[in-house]
This record gives sequence, C-alpha cells and structure tokens, in this order.
Amino acid sequence: MKKANKKVDAAIIIIGNEILSGRTQDVNVVSISKWLNKLGVKLEEVRVIPDTGDIIVKTINDVKKKFNYVFTTGGIGPTHDDITSRSIARAFNLSYGYHKEAYKILETYYGAENFNKGRKKMSMLPDKASLIFNPSSGAPGFIVDNVYCLPGVPSILNSMLGGLNSKIKGGKKILNKTIALRTVESEIASSLEKVQNNFKDVDIGSYPFFKQGKIGVSIVIRSTDVELISLCYKDIENFIKRKKIEII
Amino acid sequence: MKKANKKVDAAIIIIGNEILSGRTQDVNVVSISKWLNKLGVKLEEVRVIPDTGDIIVKTINDVKKKFNYVFTTGGIGPTHDDITSRSIARAFNLSYGYHKEAYKILETYYGAENFNKGRKKMSMLPDKASLIFNPSSGAPGFIVDNVYCLPGVPSILNSMLGGLNSKIKGGKKILNKTIALRTVESEIASSLEKVQNNFKDVDIGSYPFFKQGKIGVSIVIRSTDVELISLCYKDIENFIKRKKIEII
Repeated sequence: MKKANKKVDAAIIIIGNEILSGRTQDVNVVSISKWLNKLGVKLEEVRVIPDTGDIIVKTINDVKKKFNYVFTTGGIGPTHDDITSRSIARAFNLSYGYHKEAYKILETYYGAENFNKGRKKMSMLPDKASLIFNPSSGAPGFIVDNVYCLPGVPSILNSMLGGLNSKIKGGKKILNKTIALRTVESEIASSLEKVQNNFKDVDIGSYPFFKQGKIGVSIVIRSTDVELISLCYKDIENFIKRKKIEII
Repeated sequence: MKKANKKVDAAIIIIGNEILSGRTQDVNVVSISKWLNKLGVKLEEVRVIPDTGDIIVKTINDVKKKFNYVFTTGGIGPTHDDITSRSIARAFNLSYGYHKEAYKILETYYGAENFNKGRKKMSMLPDKASLIFNPSSGAPGFIVDNVYCLPGVPSILNSMLGGLNSKIKGGKKILNKTIALRTVESEIASSLEKVQNNFKDVDIGSYPFFKQGKIGVSIVIRSTDVELISLCYKDIENFIKRKKIEII
C-alpha cells in the first residue's frame, strides 16, 4: 500500500462475467465514486474482469500496490461462480476457510436449521479478514489489507458503504463546480484551454450534452481548493460574457 | 496483436475523468459488448482511466498485446482534455498531425467558413490511422493496428458501430440462454455447481434479482455450442423439477 499522503486514491475492480457480457449494466462505480469523493478519495482506475481465479489474483496484485484503497464488487455469494474470497486469499497468500465471526453472523441471520452449505460458503473468507457489516442481507463483506470486498447487488452494496466511513482515511475533499452553456465545444475550446493553462492544479472537463433536442456543453471544474475553483470560474465567466454565450 | 484463433477477444478502455468522478454513468460497455457478442468477439476486460497522457499510453501498450481488439471510448473531441488521438500516436510511436481525409470530411461537414481551430483539431490523428465513419456528427473515429478509437457520447458511438461490422473478424458466436427462478441462490448452489462440473466448456452464471419486491435468481448459460447449452439446460431443468422450484 502507498504511504498516506495528501492525495488519497482508489481503484475499483468489478468482478463479473455478467458485466462483461453486456447482460448487466454496472451502476456501482457511480455510487462508490460519489461516496469516495465525499471522503476525499479520488477514484483513479476501474477494471472489469471475469470470474476467473488467475485473473482476479493477478489484477488484485497489480492494483493493490498502485492505490491507497482497492474496492472489489461481486463474487461473494453462495454459488460456484462466486470466487472472490478464495481468490483474495490466494492473492495475499492467506489460508481460506470458515471465518468464525462471519459464520456466527450468518448462522444467526438464517437460523441454524436453514444454514445450508451454500449459506455456509459465504462465511468462508481469507484468514484474518476483518468484516464489513451488511445491514441488508446478512452476508458480510470483508477487508484484507487495503482491499475492500463488497457484493455486486447495488442495493446491498449501497447499504454497506456508510458503515465503512470511519475506516477510510481520505485526503482533502474534492470539490467541483459545473457550468452548463448553450454552445458547442469547438466554440469554446481555445478559450477553455487558455484557462486550463492558467490553472494547472485544477481539472477542467468539457462535456457536450444533447437533452430533449437541445445541445450544450457542461464545464466541470474540480479541485481540492475552493479558492482556485472560484478564480478559475471567474476566468471562464469572462470569456463567456465576451463571447455572449448563454448560461443554462 | 494475438494471432487469429477460434476464440476472439477484446478489451474496452474508457478514457474519461467524468466516469471516474461519478459524474457520468457509462453506458457504452453494454452496447459495445452486445455488439461484439453478435460478431463472435468476447469482451474480456474493461478499464476506466483518466484523461492523462502517460496513463493512456501505458494502458494502450499493456492491453493491445493481450487482446485481438481494443476499443477506446472518449477523448476525441475538440477541447484541451481530449487527448486520445495524441496519446494513441505516442503509444504506437507514430507522428501526430492533420489527417488529410479527416480534415476534408470535417471541412465539408462544417463548411469552410465555420471550420475553426477546435474543429480542425478533431482531424489531428496518428499518422496512417484509418477512419471510422461517423454518420451523426462528422468527426470520425480512427483505427491504428488493433486499436479502435470511438467517441464517448453514447448516441454518436452507437451510430458508428454498425459501420465497423465488416472490419471485425469474430470467432464463433457466443450464445446464451437464461432461466429465471423463484428461489434464492443458496437453495440451488450445490446442484448448480454439479451441473457446472459436468459442463466445463459452458459458463454458468447465477444472478440474484430483486424486482418489485420479489426475489429470484437468473441462471445464465453461455457457450458457442448450442447443443451444449441445450444439454446443460436439461440438467438444470432436472434439479429444478426435483426441488419443485417455479420457473418465472
């Protein structure tokens, strides 16, 4: 894991053939990213990979060194294609077996008489993993070092993020300001580039949109420094006025 | 590029801070993946990376060796944050400058009097890139070796895929069959694992769903062999009947 510094970053690894096949639309990146923004953690990479042990192990080992935090989604359920826990154990050279605390949580949740093999499997985790509480459906997520393993079902994942707030040590919060303009990108490209050159520490993004037959451009200013955002915004306002472009 | 073989695979690289920041929900993976399925190409990896030149170059160089086809989305517009074309040129050690054919297309599209600097920038491409026709908004995508660069705006991207059909040499078409069951995963996990063990060349995925207050599980069988899918389906049907599980 990288040492703590001002800039705290993260990656998401989405584990799931159903996303790659186009069957399922991922929506977890948006919710994890927005949650991380609030905590001052910048999402720097996402990878979507198949339910294949060797690929999961290799990807985890690649990514966990590069970023402060890694979040995985998917593959922690009871069926044969749920191999995230086993693969994380392999990636960290940890043994894989019944996790006492997780076993107890699930046994209580389902009741001893309904605690079948599939449900028991969800308590098989890497040795010494710490648990992520699941208020929706019992089966916990888990943490090994800087890797946080979450389920793929969006409603369950979302219900678990709040409980992690105290475990994530973010840096400065990433702030943003958006201006929507009635224009096209090519009309503002040169002016906007000049502003970007004046504000190297600010990210300025330009995104064309087409909504209800109307076209426009959203300019998004992002920085951890509210003063810089404000100064940058003024520069943009100046060329907007000069060019007589309407703010929507 | 990997040599042509029966299994033809692909990766998508989504280039865009707006996806990583959670501002924009990606929808291009689903449409590209579904299009590739029809052509017999299996999507094996997706990466989302920021608008940062060095990262784009490194990612392209990593991924283009591993897969038959690589598709990038985003970063080919007129503004300062559109750096895909320049970065692809760097990744392939090609010069970057005005592409005669693209220049002509865009000049005709906008008209000489409206062909400003921003619009001209969209005709700056890696040397010897071949073009991908854009029926929606003029600015072409482009191809260098096995890397296909497409825009990020979904409606424009979708309008360009069809024109690429003849350029993609797929393998056997990936077929799938889905069965939705009124059950929970843990009730079928053991039986389903046995079926998977009997059909090593078939991908069986199990996906719980929660719709309008009802829970269920979708089982998805994927293979290039229609006979195998049918045999596998019969095995699943057998345990469903035995367990008296309702098909939805």
